[in-house]
Amino acid sequence: MRFDIITVLPGLLESPFAHSILQRAQKKGKAEIIVHNLRDYSTNKQKSVDDYPYGGGSGMVMQIEPFASCIEKLKAERVYDEIIFMSPDGTTLNQDMANELALKGNIMILCGHYKGIDQRIRDIYVTREISVGDYVLSGGELPAAIVVDAVVRLIPGVLNDETSALSDSFQGGLLDAPVYSRPADWKGHKVPDVLLSGDQAKIENWRHEQSLKRTQERRPDLLE
Amino acid sequence: MRFDIITVLPGLLESPFAHSILQRAQKKGKAEIIVHNLRDYSTNKQKSVDDYPYGGGSGMVMQIEPFASCIEKLKAERVYDEIIFMSPDGTTLNQDMANELALKGNIMILCGHYKGIDQRIRDIYVTREISVGDYVLSGGELPAAIVVDAVVRLIPGVLNDETSALSDSFQGGLLDAPVYSRPADWKGHKVPDVLLSGDQAKIENWRHEQSLKRTQERRPDLLE
Repeated sequence: MRFDIITVLPGLLESPFAHSILQRAQKKGKAEIIVHNLRDYSTNKQKSVDDYPYGGGSGMVMQIEPFASCIEKLKAERVYDEIIFMSPDGTTLNQDMANELALKGNIMILCGHYKGIDQRIRDIYVTREISVGDYVLSGGELPAAIVVDAVVRLIPGVLNDETSALSDSFQGGLLDAPVYSRPADWKGHKVPDVLLSGDQAKIENWRHEQSLKRTQERRPDLLE
Repeated sequence: MRFDIITVLPGLLESPFAHSILQRAQKKGKAEIIVHNLRDYSTNKQKSVDDYPYGGGSGMVMQIEPFASCIEKLKAERVYDEIIFMSPDGTTLNQDMANELALKGNIMILCGHYKGIDQRIRDIYVTREISVGDYVLSGGELPAAIVVDAVVRLIPGVLNDETSALSDSFQGGLLDAPVYSRPADWKGHKVPDVLLSGDQAKIENWRHEQSLKRTQERRPDLLE
């Protein structure tokens, strides 16, 4: 699987892609993550990629030309299954969408910054707009990293323990049960007896109950 | 405003906090963002902070002792308004929550990794659990960066153009209207005439209509 991410701040994405599971996925050859500097496609000497909005108002708008040049160049090199624009206006990312995206081959992600991007980029090129949640961020870079992380960890062979991703929250429609590790007693705060019982059936039963209870209390919408 | 972030992967957060608005906010003295390496609080020579879960099952659990030592040390230094645990089980972050958090002074954020953190950390220390959305990620680091970004940009004086944050999507309960910049005609794709009209009342009217229309089409739930 390949991700091409177009951004005006390539440096911002350096460390998230160079650690942990995303680093391992790339080393194992399971995912390629290439970050493109939009300024390399600027049409002027100042390397600017934004300009004032037509009609006035605050903030700058990312212009169509640099994005179009970069997208066209990449599209000439390979076929993209999706060209995603990260935007609070988009469809909200959830685990089903992550599962679906994990089956794709090549994905391009455009990161906006400043006030927004010229609407024509969205109209002409973008196949899907995704939001990571109902909040405003400085740009699409962290949301792009979120999408890549959520998706790459689902690619078979990326996680060391295959069962780990399947038992995660949301995959079974329920939140996870509480987990505990050593020590069994920390300053009087004890691990539930059942987890120390060695009775695996009883433990699984307790975990399922806890999982249901937590979901009912915190996210009854997931049970509907 | 001060953020203390506790993580097993401090390097992952380096570049997001060293660019763009988060960098400027720190340089201006509007926000302090300190990342703590949980391994510095490990109780053993191997610097490990996780162990097998009681009751069996896949994945490792982050133990209580390193977190407790780090949290206690920080709490001895200053008072925290919130100790947040990033978790898919938490309350979903939205703009109202970001606005509320922007009024706080000191915030501690705990990042989980692996299968989860010992439930007793959540029971004893955590004042608030926050999820950035209904999807599973490799750890709490990117979600912590999302929270910091969403909150810091709301601190007065952080954005250059004060009106910019107020006119963002969600702040008025509506999605943004489309934006356009030069050129007015790109390969036959034209900017809407009204934006070139110079008639500011007409432009504001069109923007409001577009904003409403987009919200109705994409996020009717925001209008309820």
